[in-house]
Amino acid sequence: MSTFGHLFRVTTYGESHCKSVGCIVDGIPPGMDLTEADIQPQLSRRRPGQSKLSTPRDEKDKVEIHSGTENGKTLGTPIGMLVRNQDQRPHDYSETDIYPRPSHADFTYLQKYGIKASSGGGRSSARETIGRVAAGGIAEKFLKKVNNVEIVAFVSAVGEVSIDRDPRSESFLKLLNTVTREQVDEVGPIRCPDLEIQDKLTKIIEHYRDLKDSIGGVVTCVIRNLPIGLGEPAFDKLEAMLAHAMLSIPATKGFEIGSGFIGTTIPGSKHNDPFYLDPTTGKLRTKTNNSGGIQGGISNGENIYFSVAFKPAATISQDQTTSSYDGEEGILAARGRHDPSVVPRAVPIVESMAALVLADAVLIQKSREFARSVVA
Amino acid sequence: MSTFGHLFRVTTYGESHCKSVGCIVDGIPPGMDLTEADIQPQLSRRRPGQSKLSTPRDEKDKVEIHSGTENGKTLGTPIGMLVRNQDQRPHDYSETDIYPRPSHADFTYLQKYGIKASSGGGRSSARETIGRVAAGGIAEKFLKKVNNVEIVAFVSAVGEVSIDRDPRSESFLKLLNTVTREQVDEVGPIRCPDLEIQDKLTKIIEHYRDLKDSIGGVVTCVIRNLPIGLGEPAFDKLEAMLAHAMLSIPATKGFEIGSGFIGTTIPGSKHNDPFYLDPTTGKLRTKTNNSGGIQGGISNGENIYFSVAFKPAATISQDQTTSSYDGEEGILAARGRHDPSVVPRAVPIVESMAALVLADAVLIQKSREFARSVVA
Amino acid sequence: MSTFGHLFRVTTYGESHCKSVGCIVDGIPPGMDLTEADIQPQLSRRRPGQSKLSTPRDEKDKVEIHSGTENGKTLGTPIGMLVRNQDQRPHDYSETDIYPRPSHADFTYLQKYGIKASSGGGRSSARETIGRVAAGGIAEKFLKKVNNVEIVAFVSAVGEVSIDRDPRSESFLKLLNTVTREQVDEVGPIRCPDLEIQDKLTKIIEHYRDLKDSIGGVVTCVIRNLPIGLGEPAFDKLEAMLAHAMLSIPATKGFEIGSGFIGTTIPGSKHNDPFYLDPTTGKLRTKTNNSGGIQGGISNGENIYFSVAFKPAATISQDQTTSSYDGEEGILAARGRHDPSVVPRAVPIVESMAALVLADAVLIQKSREFARSVVA
Amino acid sequence: MSTFGHLFRVTTYGESHCKSVGCIVDGIPPGMDLTEADIQPQLSRRRPGQSKLSTPRDEKDKVEIHSGTENGKTLGTPIGMLVRNQDQRPHDYSETDIYPRPSHADFTYLQKYGIKASSGGGRSSARETIGRVAAGGIAEKFLKKVNNVEIVAFVSAVGEVSIDRDPRSESFLKLLNTVTREQVDEVGPIRCPDLEIQDKLTKIIEHYRDLKDSIGGVVTCVIRNLPIGLGEPAFDKLEAMLAHAMLSIPATKGFEIGSGFIGTTIPGSKHNDPFYLDPTTGKLRTKTNNSGGIQGGISNGENIYFSVAFKPAATISQDQTTSSYDGEEGILAARGRHDPSVVPRAVPIVESMAALVLADAVLIQKSREFARSVVA
Repeated sequence: MSTFGHLFRVTTYGESHCKSVGCIVDGIPPGMDLTEADIQPQLSRRRPGQSKLSTPRDEKDKVEIHSGTENGKTLGTPIGMLVRNQDQRPHDYSETDIYPRPSHADFTYLQKYGIKASSGGGRSSARETIGRVAAGGIAEKFLKKVNNVEIVAFVSAVGEVSIDRDPRSESFLKLLNTVTREQVDEVGPIRCPDLEIQDKLTKIIEHYRDLKDSIGGVVTCVIRNLPIGLGEPAFDKLEAMLAHAMLSIPATKGFEIGSGFIGTTIPGSKHNDPFYLDPTTGKLRTKTNNSGGIQGGISNGENIYFSVAFKPAATISQDQTTSSYDGEEGILAARGRHDPSVVPRAVPIVESMAALVLADAVLIQKSREFARSVVA
Repeated sequence: MSTFGHLFRVTTYGESHCKSVGCIVDGIPPGMDLTEADIQPQLSRRRPGQSKLSTPRDEKDKVEIHSGTENGKTLGTPIGMLVRNQDQRPHDYSETDIYPRPSHADFTYLQKYGIKASSGGGRSSARETIGRVAAGGIAEKFLKKVNNVEIVAFVSAVGEVSIDRDPRSESFLKLLNTVTREQVDEVGPIRCPDLEIQDKLTKIIEHYRDLKDSIGGVVTCVIRNLPIGLGEPAFDKLEAMLAHAMLSIPATKGFEIGSGFIGTTIPGSKHNDPFYLDPTTGKLRTKTNNSGGIQGGISNGENIYFSVAFKPAATISQDQTTSSYDGEEGILAARGRHDPSVVPRAVPIVESMAALVLADAVLIQKSREFARSVVA
Repeated sequence: MSTFGHLFRVTTYGESHCKSVGCIVDGIPPGMDLTEADIQPQLSRRRPGQSKLSTPRDEKDKVEIHSGTENGKTLGTPIGMLVRNQDQRPHDYSETDIYPRPSHADFTYLQKYGIKASSGGGRSSARETIGRVAAGGIAEKFLKKVNNVEIVAFVSAVGEVSIDRDPRSESFLKLLNTVTREQVDEVGPIRCPDLEIQDKLTKIIEHYRDLKDSIGGVVTCVIRNLPIGLGEPAFDKLEAMLAHAMLSIPATKGFEIGSGFIGTTIPGSKHNDPFYLDPTTGKLRTKTNNSGGIQGGISNGENIYFSVAFKPAATISQDQTTSSYDGEEGILAARGRHDPSVVPRAVPIVESMAALVLADAVLIQKSREFARSVVA
Repeated sequence: MSTFGHLFRVTTYGESHCKSVGCIVDGIPPGMDLTEADIQPQLSRRRPGQSKLSTPRDEKDKVEIHSGTENGKTLGTPIGMLVRNQDQRPHDYSETDIYPRPSHADFTYLQKYGIKASSGGGRSSARETIGRVAAGGIAEKFLKKVNNVEIVAFVSAVGEVSIDRDPRSESFLKLLNTVTREQVDEVGPIRCPDLEIQDKLTKIIEHYRDLKDSIGGVVTCVIRNLPIGLGEPAFDKLEAMLAHAMLSIPATKGFEIGSGFIGTTIPGSKHNDPFYLDPTTGKLRTKTNNSGGIQGGISNGENIYFSVAFKPAATISQDQTTSSYDGEEGILAARGRHDPSVVPRAVPIVESMAALVLADAVLIQKSREFARSVVA
């Protein structure tokens, strides 16, 4: 459904052609500075029309806070937020009345909801993610206060070209330790901070754009400074909540945490993360981090890192042979121009969903810490 | 926490050395035939000590139904089930009082729960999964009744050797169409139905067993005959629920659905699944199935297939250099013999968690279908 | 928190002085006719300023649907709705900075949220209920489609004067069988359909209004034509969900279902509802209905009826001796004019919350019916 | 369904004639002393066969802890508990195959679950409450640690005779301030601590017992020393959670908090609770407590008190004229002896449900306090 989280909770609404899209964020602590200026930056990063790599539909996507703050401070009550849709024409894609678009939600939405109209599938469009990103901005602000938690996502692969995501790779680990959101953005629209491959990735996208085709990719995300102890076994392990959140983002096909699929090929004697005493903090840490910052479903204080696979955008600028709803084979003609790759724009969405998971996990764990302290 | 599901819901309890492990399954329809004989088979498949590939600790794992049935039929009330622990010695691993085992939950459980005892980490052990598998047996029985839903998981990779999981591979698609649980088991303890690589996989596990080491692998699962329309966007898309369920299984590091990470390398024009009219059913189907049976978060009637990455078992039969809780570097000595790979035993656990997700999704979707029909 | 319901779910936001108040309603079936005209009537009934019995603050309370419909039909996606606040001055009650208003939420909001501002307590104001009523309008429309479910609430007591609510009273049972929303409204602002006492109740309210005081009362609600089988024991019995819903309405102090507190004085031999065969339907019914339409937590097909106690409005138009936040005794001066009794305006709120509980219960029960049918 | 609570959560199972009844309690902090001896006392108070006022079926009801503790301390993992049923005969009441017992759940269970057997309705029997009481014992222990929270329930009315529950009554307020569980029990099986009426109440029950009839009553509960700030508006106000919990107990018909239904007759100028500075603590308190310790849905530090109406037991020891399932009028013959009043045994059940609500509310509020402190 459209609600996510337990104590820090977001509920979203809206599709492409209705009046607005938005969300209600519940469980935000009172007394926190909060204005639209805290929320707009990630919305703007999510926005289409930012570069020639993405769709030229320009939508302003200005957020309005409708409740839950007074004089720039949160009240502890739910934050209602909305972004107006510029384009409320209910019907831009008339041919989709005849053909279910391949690998879109048209067919399944018709089956589940009985709706063939453009707005019917609009809830499965990227526009639905605006509410997530608006909510994520608040979650991030809270996490900064908790422990200066940093969440940075970036494009790590497009098509066949990828940064080395092997958890034994020193360059990868260094990147995870140091990458900033500024670095991710300053390289340009591709949002890959790896100087060696960023041009290649851009060229791949341009290549498929010129072919009127699309291509997928991988977004990798690192979380630094997260408190120890987050996650609620057995079913709400931290990685399980992150996986749930990430696979709820449109166009995602996979999730891996820490060593991920590569980790299945590493022997236990190498994969295990031995402990050592960090002399600067006097605390135990692990020498390696194949676990990806989570052991037994609980954060261990190391960087959490994970990757999310995004499929090629289903909407492409070339004709497709497929069947009509009536079962007649025919040609679904291409219309307009579309994002040749969703991964650059997915970066803030991944960050936002991570922030929502973590803010909720922090709130839960803090009650666990209190309870433990009181019975000891 | 220890509860999973909305209308079909399981709550589990138990760790390695307490009296019993078990679960309460809520939301089971009344009037369904159900005895221990329906539940025991998957528990026995999950059980250790089945072969030289797995740990020799023989536990009987006989399930007892304590409530919710009468005369072999369900009452519609919660099913309480338990499996007694044979070995209730609270302390088998005394060295773990000194050393947190690398890549185990010892350290994070101590941080979160303040418990250093063996049972403290016992909730993160594979024994916790008994309740899931017992519940899964009921969910599977229900799904059989719904539409003869078939759920078959198998080992698709161990270490570097894998079956071809490319969604464009004909042999892979044929395997997904035809593989049965009997085929998975008849090949022996490795539970890989691919005749070409099953011996290789067995040898890899034996190799690491002889090295007193461990190795990870991949379990792939296919779901056939699932009704169309399952899944609850935006946040409870069917793949998001599956990802949540799978990443809650101990030792998992990744999840991919349909084309997964490979799908990020396929252009949209090839990745999109075009529709055609199936003449035998008169219904639309897709020619390819890169989507993995889910579009827009909703099942489309094609096979659902996904893969789960399992790391190498953290407990290995060789000494490990690490730090004590006190920060002193030392040697954590090996103790006893352990599973060199968890993947064969993980097969019924993956199937069970899938069944729990699907039974819940079916219940929810059936109420949606009613509601839609009544307002039309 | 601000979300209520499982499959039919509302999330609300908004306080007195922010931009708007509203809600997101999730789980509405697709294809249902729905426009603002379906929602406005109950909002208008809830609105203050309707008569000399209620507060003269005139707020237009026009609802806007922002998502989830197209061409006047629901899409199956969440309905975002909002009502703009006319009066967004953040500070109308400056004295409340000094004194916590007795029996208001000022003190507890300050303790919990640290907020002393007017908007801080605004979430506890009646204005918060707009989102509930807007959502309830949709739930009611759905319930009409399900089985022509009728929900009628009315004022049954003000101060010491009450209709006879004894479940053995024939006039009471007749009223429950026949009362309509039109009858409730046509008697004027008091919303009591009992011709004998409605004038008395009006006079009591006018009496306390003239005294610059306030007075409480009781709202009774009847639900007719509800399907059998609703309610989810053990914890989510139908009466438990109704009680939860009703006690979440501001100013409520009690709930009773069926015979209620009177029922504690009736011997079992008289209180038990014997069965008989209804010749017109061929179905079992009960001769009496002390149970209030629910047995064992499950609806039995008889009328459900319950009553909700509302305390006197805490805001009164006379000075009150109390303590300042600083602990100094002083006089909280009266300001403006206020509702001398909340009960007339509470009528549509009670109906709306009942509708939300029932719509959710119907959706859940329909999945139970499917599941039972499929395993039989 | 059979799960209650968010962070402190109980799931129950079991009916009258199955192997055992029990529960899983999740969210208990680690490191708390806990053995069966902490849980047994309330179970023994709940047990039938304690006196001539209650049913003579003697059931031992010895609790077994199956998980979640080691060496008498909690592990932070779920506590599995069970109580074996002594009497597992599936069919003691053969006549109930022919007649649905009036005001029992037989008819609605048949409608919802299609089960006519004795165990079918067994989930609606008082035996289901064992899991609640076992869980409540743990919740109470935790609340003692939090702030020495005291929860004392007692019988306040049977039939027409009641203690004075007017919130303006000094004797009532004194009773709420001082009553202990020991006082409640030492008066004998009636569990009414009021010396003036306890004999009357006993005689009423004996009167109806001798008439082979039954009679209802009221249980009042007071909670002392509760921290300020508990409750989660708008929908999860503390009184709403309590009402939900209480109305989920079998045989309940009403709930009132603070002034309750009497409060509807008191003018606001008298009903409002003015504040004063408590010189001993330096904190604001209220002079009166008509609010019942909750304002705006949030605990204010005063005693919380509420009352729960219990109907007369539906099972009576005299014949009843009713209809068979087939629609034939006939006589349901009396069988055996039964509790003439459930209220004395309901006392520990009310306490237990209150404890479950409060433990959950404490855990949630402590995370709110942390969050507020960190953003300030």
